[in-house]
Amino acid sequence: MNVTLIGAGNLATNLGKALLSTGFEINQVYSRTKKSAELLAGKLDCCFTNDIEEIKKDSDFYICSLKDTALEDVASNLSVNENAVVVHTAGSMPLDIIKTATTKHYGVLYPMQSFSKNKEVSFKEIPIFIEASDSKSMEIIKFVSSSISDKIIELSSEKRKYIHLSAVFVCNFVNYMYSIGADIVGLTNLDFNLLIPLIKETASKVEKMSPAESQTGPAVRYDENVINKHIELLKNKPEWAEIYRLLSDGIHNKAKLK
Amino acid sequence: MNVTLIGAGNLATNLGKALLSTGFEINQVYSRTKKSAELLAGKLDCCFTNDIEEIKKDSDFYICSLKDTALEDVASNLSVNENAVVVHTAGSMPLDIIKTATTKHYGVLYPMQSFSKNKEVSFKEIPIFIEASDSKSMEIIKFVSSSISDKIIELSSEKRKYIHLSAVFVCNFVNYMYSIGADIVGLTNLDFNLLIPLIKETASKVEKMSPAESQTGPAVRYDENVINKHIELLKNKPEWAEIYRLLSDGIHNKAKLK
Repeated sequence: MNVTLIGAGNLATNLGKALLSTGFEINQVYSRTKKSAELLAGKLDCCFTNDIEEIKKDSDFYICSLKDTALEDVASNLSVNENAVVVHTAGSMPLDIIKTATTKHYGVLYPMQSFSKNKEVSFKEIPIFIEASDSKSMEIIKFVSSSISDKIIELSSEKRKYIHLSAVFVCNFVNYMYSIGADIVGLTNLDFNLLIPLIKETASKVEKMSPAESQTGPAVRYDENVINKHIELLKNKPEWAEIYRLLSDGIHNKAKLK
Repeated sequence: MNVTLIGAGNLATNLGKALLSTGFEINQVYSRTKKSAELLAGKLDCCFTNDIEEIKKDSDFYICSLKDTALEDVASNLSVNENAVVVHTAGSMPLDIIKTATTKHYGVLYPMQSFSKNKEVSFKEIPIFIEASDSKSMEIIKFVSSSISDKIIELSSEKRKYIHLSAVFVCNFVNYMYSIGADIVGLTNLDFNLLIPLIKETASKVEKMSPAESQTGPAVRYDENVINKHIELLKNKPEWAEIYRLLSDGIHNKAKLK
């Protein structure tokens, strides 16, 4: 099967590599930025273009991994073979956004993971949420996604929005907490790596018990003495103090409900 | 060496087990609550009391793992042998809070980890931050802490406060993000375990790159389309919407500074 990647960002890079390694042929990479297209095409040993009209029509499968706002525009300009399947990979965009004029077959292939270009991930365990316009497309999307992952879940656009939202909390917001933690540790001239055992244990705990059960710290026992001291330490960082206050209140209110 | 545990909470439980397994003798457990004292004493094969005046004077090392606000009161009522060393385990409390009338030897032994009574942790990798009133106490505190961990760091009370604050962000607040994520996934009737690969990858990424480099998601690229949709999804949960907005602004502002 021939695959075209439309987009050359973190997700396209990781998907492209994973598909190539399981035997798919990458036909072409498109990106608005020539340099990005060329870079990824180099990694995947295929041709590239930055002109949407030069996207080749002879692929079986088109994966659009673009900024959400670019999807509609690309879909409406995309001209492909009538048997081709076109999918997008966005957590929060509806199925129909990727409908194109030239094929009736389209869908969604949303791998829930945090991708960086320079850190390879193993796709095997990553849940991929899929959706399709019709049964033939569904079959092909399943074939492609199950070649790289063991966890394929059919899910409506409506529910996928919530899954994406939860991913923002457990990944993007969590990483921001790491980032503030790193900045605070930096104030003492100690090394951020000292926090790694705590970070790993916190992540590992929720495999064994629910996050509500594993909650610890001053906020859950509402230790006002510690909370007030911490807020005092943040007096030169009012935005962190506000985060501290808001999250501590949330933790405390949740604990009270138990 | 004989150790007395003052307090029978999560940390006392984990410390007691770790010390017992490396050859220390646990002499006695004290807790205000008789049941907690008895339960932990049963696990550590020692006697217990819930009367502060019955704390035995013949231990070499007293570990006070109590709510911060209880430390001063217990320290002022504690009567021990003049050669004994008394330590507290609190991240945010100064060294002197644990000064007692009967011994000149006191200090701090703060293991930075999230402890639950029912999940055993390996102490080996956990950083323990220590501080002491005098060199003899420091020697003994080093001996005790290095018997259970390989990472012993001498640190002033002033700097320890910041380390504790950073731990609140990377552990307690992170766990609260997991908790909100779990509640949101619950709305779709999907299983929280689907988020585990994402949680693990997010934690593992910051071993390889800084949290600032590993930040992904709609906020870092300021994808207002997604951000607004997510806030709309949270319209019945205004407290989560406020957290979403505040953290997204923080991520975006930080990314702009890079």
